[in-house]
Amino acid sequence: MPTIAVDAMGGDLAPEEVVKGVAQASLETDIHCTLVGDEAQIQAALDRVPYNPAHIGVHHTRDFISMAEDPKRTLRQKRNASVLVAARLVSEGQADAVVTAGNTGAAVLACGQHFKIVRGARKAALASVYPRQTEYPGQDQLALLLDVGATIRCDTTELVQFALMGSAYARHVSKVPSPRVALLNMGAEETKGGDALVNAHRRLKGIPDLNFVGNIEGNDLAKGKADVIVCEGLLGNVVLKLLEGLAEVVVDLAGTARRENWRWKLGFFMLANSFGRLRDLTDYAAYGGAPILGFEHLMIKSHGRSNARAIKNAIKVAAKAVRDGVTREIAAAIERL
Amino acid sequence: MPTIAVDAMGGDLAPEEVVKGVAQASLETDIHCTLVGDEAQIQAALDRVPYNPAHIGVHHTRDFISMAEDPKRTLRQKRNASVLVAARLVSEGQADAVVTAGNTGAAVLACGQHFKIVRGARKAALASVYPRQTEYPGQDQLALLLDVGATIRCDTTELVQFALMGSAYARHVSKVPSPRVALLNMGAEETKGGDALVNAHRRLKGIPDLNFVGNIEGNDLAKGKADVIVCEGLLGNVVLKLLEGLAEVVVDLAGTARRENWRWKLGFFMLANSFGRLRDLTDYAAYGGAPILGFEHLMIKSHGRSNARAIKNAIKVAAKAVRDGVTREIAAAIERL
Repeated sequence: MPTIAVDAMGGDLAPEEVVKGVAQASLETDIHCTLVGDEAQIQAALDRVPYNPAHIGVHHTRDFISMAEDPKRTLRQKRNASVLVAARLVSEGQADAVVTAGNTGAAVLACGQHFKIVRGARKAALASVYPRQTEYPGQDQLALLLDVGATIRCDTTELVQFALMGSAYARHVSKVPSPRVALLNMGAEETKGGDALVNAHRRLKGIPDLNFVGNIEGNDLAKGKADVIVCEGLLGNVVLKLLEGLAEVVVDLAGTARRENWRWKLGFFMLANSFGRLRDLTDYAAYGGAPILGFEHLMIKSHGRSNARAIKNAIKVAAKAVRDGVTREIAAAIERL
Repeated sequence: MPTIAVDAMGGDLAPEEVVKGVAQASLETDIHCTLVGDEAQIQAALDRVPYNPAHIGVHHTRDFISMAEDPKRTLRQKRNASVLVAARLVSEGQADAVVTAGNTGAAVLACGQHFKIVRGARKAALASVYPRQTEYPGQDQLALLLDVGATIRCDTTELVQFALMGSAYARHVSKVPSPRVALLNMGAEETKGGDALVNAHRRLKGIPDLNFVGNIEGNDLAKGKADVIVCEGLLGNVVLKLLEGLAEVVVDLAGTARRENWRWKLGFFMLANSFGRLRDLTDYAAYGGAPILGFEHLMIKSHGRSNARAIKNAIKVAAKAVRDGVTREIAAAIERL
């Protein structure tokens, strides 16, 4: 059974909800978790919930990086911040993967500091998942979008490598055995989007075992055309935040409805089922987290607002990826390029 | 009074709705319109509605470019396509601006073929408008996003010029005397987004009379932080189509509601007011169209699904921009750079 190093101090609801998520995982699974953070706070949180001590270890460190801190500067000052120590445990062989709900920039930088980049890989990618319509029975309700901010601009090779990384990850972690991979572009035609995208399109078409479905446009993102959507970080970051922003508008609307008059309340009650789908957009707990890909080891970045269920799901995802050897599969795919 | 050359054959509902829109404008305003397209079809459509013949002329041409045709190839074969002839009328001084609801690519190429680019301008930009929340009373409900597809990648100077173009246009056509201009980026900090964006941020900060409010992120697009949002075409195109795609999902939901059971119907009835805002997203008619900027003359591109009201509003917008000398103001702003 793999050991997952969990950043106990990362996230808006840390350490309480993180520890609670680990406690739940200890009862429901055989996965071993090492909680990294302030031992006293961790133990106090553990004392409040049922857990299986055989599956939980604690690795003490006092420092941590808050959500608002500038990751680059802080990382230099806090060499024993919990997310850095968690990554170090993995690089030293004391754990197999990291789960953190903390500062995203710090998570990416911690990987860069303690993990080796996969041989032949040019850059690492930060992935994210978002719910969209499905096109066929059994398709996963979540699509994987990468990169959403580890890079800014990407060249052809980087986009091709991100496609391989995302495909390998999705094959094991989503419900889809042969995930459809697409390039996010400004047109469906293979001649669109400039040199990097045109050449990436041509190269991806020629890769055996990759289910490349071509370009998709912005209006296809909410549909089920692709399971893995590849783009450079600047574009992915704007798209992801736009989707999150619109989800917040929907949640605001629902919140208003609850406070407002009977017409609102009744209306929302009547539409509860259909709103379920929209509400899913903000149910971070259901998907647990998304990976930082391209390193020899895996880090799962959960949403900052993760609750215990989200952390538990992220731990399960990390353990499955470790057991299935996802990072080795990515390395092999990049080597074959 | 300005003369607007209207592409009678462009758009999903052409020529009927286009002609009807021109007819309405002829009764409500003093604007003169020249309908460009098949004379017989135009006259047949005119005969079915009331109009003021003193304000309407017809310029016959048989060719037109359909929505589905490849604009580049078709433009070479159909040198007398209605959108090209409309642009030529403007370049020859027989009209002051063009309105078209036809093929977007053909509209941009027609400008490139018949209009001179503004002195000093590097590239033209295709703008689009979309509704979002407002932040203060009197703020326009629509934001202007550019470029959404005339370019792919943009360097610093091109982004700076787009900001000036969008600001000048919005100052006259929107309700805002000093529109807030922002760069779409992956972070609010001025160090984000790579060289082109970082340098554009620095240069825009230094331009007097420009109300530059810095970077905005994807989640700010649905808010009222900025009135003019500047980005390169690849990014703007994906964002615009994503917004349109999500609007279609909402319309689908509403359509389902109408067909479905009483719970749905009652629910939607109860929420009708709040859905108004979401429905606005697809009310192309209210905004008429968005400009192609950077040329010495103006073309307003209306949505392909434009009805008579949309065309009429686009004609009014075009006439106002002509009267206010928007393209000369853009030229002056770029010269001052």
